[in-house]
Formats: sequence, structure tokens, C-alpha cells
Amino acid sequence: MGDLTEPGGKARLFVEGPLGPHMRVTPSPEQAHYLLHVMRAKPGERVSLFNGRDGEWRAEIAEVAKRNCTLVCETQTAPQTQAPDIWLVFAPVKKTPADYLTQKATELGVRALQPVFTRRTIVTRVNLERLRANAIEAAEQSDRTDVPETREPLPLEKLLARWPAERKLLFCDEAGDAPSIADALKDVRGGPWAVLTGPEGGFDPKERELIRAMPSVVPVTLGTRILRADTAALAALAVWQSLAGDWR
Amino acid sequence: MGDLTEPGGKARLFVEGPLGPHMRVTPSPEQAHYLLHVMRAKPGERVSLFNGRDGEWRAEIAEVAKRNCTLVCETQTAPQTQAPDIWLVFAPVKKTPADYLTQKATELGVRALQPVFTRRTIVTRVNLERLRANAIEAAEQSDRTDVPETREPLPLEKLLARWPAERKLLFCDEAGDAPSIADALKDVRGGPWAVLTGPEGGFDPKERELIRAMPSVVPVTLGTRILRADTAALAALAVWQSLAGDWR
Repeated sequence: MGDLTEPGGKARLFVEGPLGPHMRVTPSPEQAHYLLHVMRAKPGERVSLFNGRDGEWRAEIAEVAKRNCTLVCETQTAPQTQAPDIWLVFAPVKKTPADYLTQKATELGVRALQPVFTRRTIVTRVNLERLRANAIEAAEQSDRTDVPETREPLPLEKLLARWPAERKLLFCDEAGDAPSIADALKDVRGGPWAVLTGPEGGFDPKERELIRAMPSVVPVTLGTRILRADTAALAALAVWQSLAGDWR
Repeated sequence: MGDLTEPGGKARLFVEGPLGPHMRVTPSPEQAHYLLHVMRAKPGERVSLFNGRDGEWRAEIAEVAKRNCTLVCETQTAPQTQAPDIWLVFAPVKKTPADYLTQKATELGVRALQPVFTRRTIVTRVNLERLRANAIEAAEQSDRTDVPETREPLPLEKLLARWPAERKLLFCDEAGDAPSIADALKDVRGGPWAVLTGPEGGFDPKERELIRAMPSVVPVTLGTRILRADTAALAALAVWQSLAGDWR
């Protein structure tokens, strides 16, 4: 009997409902379409499910109709885990780079995605549904059992005003008088942390002053080459995971 | 008089010919079009030029015709520098991810880009001209004075057979028994190194054996989440730069 949980024919789906022994799950219409018409799944075949709370479950495809099917949980295949306590706070960028940034940040293991509007941010709205869909898809593909939280965008001033005091703010500062990221993180283990990156064009001088005045700020540099905002964000996340996060 | 070397109205061009005091440079037809019709540059305005050998020069726009112009070097604005001695060896991916990977790797400061064909590589040819164009564009935008070398693709076996013994090969191994990248790099400073990442679907078991048997191989893991090939490449480059490269 085919097994869609194996690499090559992989079906790993995020669902909203509870998962547990013998529990029945109805996939969304899009998921049912994917299973039945893209993967051509047959009754008795297996898929992997997770919901962000109950770990990963192997489930059997049962009761296949033309447009839908039921999935029945068999055994838990992975315990529930959570990404390290690192947020990505980012100025929203255009559609394709935003999709890319969300997917990569999810793979790199962020716990939350927080869009922030700054003075030089060109994009004026964030499609939160699209942000969430990208985060879910990347969580499915990267074998996460959790999905990063996707937050309502906030103006920078408001975000900083309500910033939780204990959460360190890794600020990728273009000005260049900050220590290197490796030096700044060399004795750090675990969260709570956040990576903050600006829009194309950077933060304006007043914003930079505001950020640097935060008691929890840790300004760092990522070398002398100019990085695009999304490159800086992904690089900072990777270095944080490697030194302070769960890659170690 | 306008200055196109300033942020906001930035014109920074890679040219092939030599640069030096009073030297005259004829931009390519595409560059002339960009300067005259996109940037609407006028005679007397300034641009930045680099050629990978003579540092960065400020040049004045002179002799403007309908379709072309001449640029006259004034002063050197940055010395010639070179990215650290780190190569990216990567299995080619589809068009858009390949563009993205090339741009990001250039920003992150690779010295050379080496495509490699593996058994599971789906893409069968590499557009070297496009690879080079993306590397040049990213070098222009990231303020590099050098452009990463773009190499002819090679089959994995051939690449490994002629691998220079002194060059360490950072192998992002999915199998998971390797040390973390931070531990593997903690006492390393500088090159010669290379990051090796596989295709979507990874290396096949025989290839993996071949790679792990190389005397210069340094296998590492990037955590337990599954990273796409391009995410792994960029993450490994960022961590290398932060610990062993010129971000420190």
C-alpha cells in the first residue's frame, strides 16, 4: 500500500482540528483536491498531519468521495515541538520577496513573524492571509510541527512602545559602529529574542535613534557589503540559530 | 550639479575596461540606455564605476549623444577589495530560484559560484550568461568592487576528482550525525573554503559517500528542520562569513 508520508510522494498537511488516536479529520477543500487529484491518493494510503499542538500524526485516507475524504489518525510520528523563541520583525516588501522571506524565515525556525511599518516602507498593506498561507506551506515542507505566528502589522513607534522588556532586539545596523553579529551572540543561548530589519532604503535617522535607545537593543553589523533587507533578515536568523538557537 | 553616486539616485556600474585618472570609459549600450533614459543623466553628472581590478572610481558623464555617452574617471573612491576565499558549489535549480541564489550569494560575499550536476539534479543546463549578469548586478548593488567568478558547471564526480586539497569543503549534510555548523567553524578564520549544497531531494547515497570520503570535507548540520537547497546554501554562507569570514 502506497505511503504518502515518504519522501518523493510526500503529503504533509497542517490542519486546524485536534489530532489523537482514531480521531477523524476532514481536510479543507484545497487539501482534498491536492490529495485526491494532484497526489492521486487512494483509500488506505497514508499522509502526515500536524496542527501545532498535538505533534505529527500518520493518518489513513478513508471514505473517499469525489470532492472530499476523511483522514483517520493512526499513530503519533513526532512529538509536538516549538521553534526557538526568536521573532522576525520586518518591514513589508513587495509580493514575491515577501512570500520568499516568509517561507525562508519559517524554514529557518522563527516563532513569530511581525510586520512593521517604517517611514521609508513603500508597501502600505500586508496580506495577512497570504502571509499565513506561506508560513503554513513552509512549515509543512520543513517538517515543523508548529507554524510561526503571523501578527498584525504595527507602526514602528507603537511596536517599540509596547516592546516586552525581556526580549532582546537584534538590530542589523547599517551604520557600522556596532559589533559583529558573532561577537554579539557568542555567549547567548536561547530566547526571547527578535531580529529587526528595515525596509529597502533603511531606517530613517530618527527611527534609528529610537531603536538604538531601546534598553533591549543589541546592534550588530553583517559586514561591509550592502545587503538587501531580506538578505539581512535571513542571514541574521541563520547566524542566531547557529550560535544561540537550536542548530547547536 | 546632480550626483548619481548618492543613495536614492544611485548609478554604480561594472565595466570591463581599465579605470584610472582621466581614463575614458564607454558604457555598454544597455548601461548607456540606463544612464540616459532611465536615470536621465545629464553631462557633468557623476556615476561610480568598478571593474574588479582597479577599485571604485567616480566618473563624470561627458559627450552625451542620443544612444551613448563617455564616462571620464576623476578620483578613486574605494580601493580594490576581494571577497573572502569562499566558493559556493551548488546544484542548479529552476530559473527564478537560481537568480535569487546568485544575487544573495553575491551579497553575502562569495568569491566564486560553481554549479555542479548531481544524480538528482533536475535542471540540465545552466545559463552562464544569466548567472554572470545576476552576479554583476548584485555586485553593483552591494557595493562590491569585485564580481564573483562564475564557473562552467561540472558533474559532481569530476569536481571532486580535481578538488584542490587545501580547500575545505563545508558539506551541509542532511543525515544528521555531523556536528553543528557553529562548532565546526568555531576556530576557523578565513579561506580557502567552499560551501557545498545539493539539489532538491538531496545527494543520493553514493554521492554522499563520495563527498564524506573527501579528505577536505567538513560535514555540518543546520538543525533538524528541512531546509530547501537554496536556504541551506545562504544560511551556511551567512554563518561562515560571521564566524570565519570578513563579518568579524
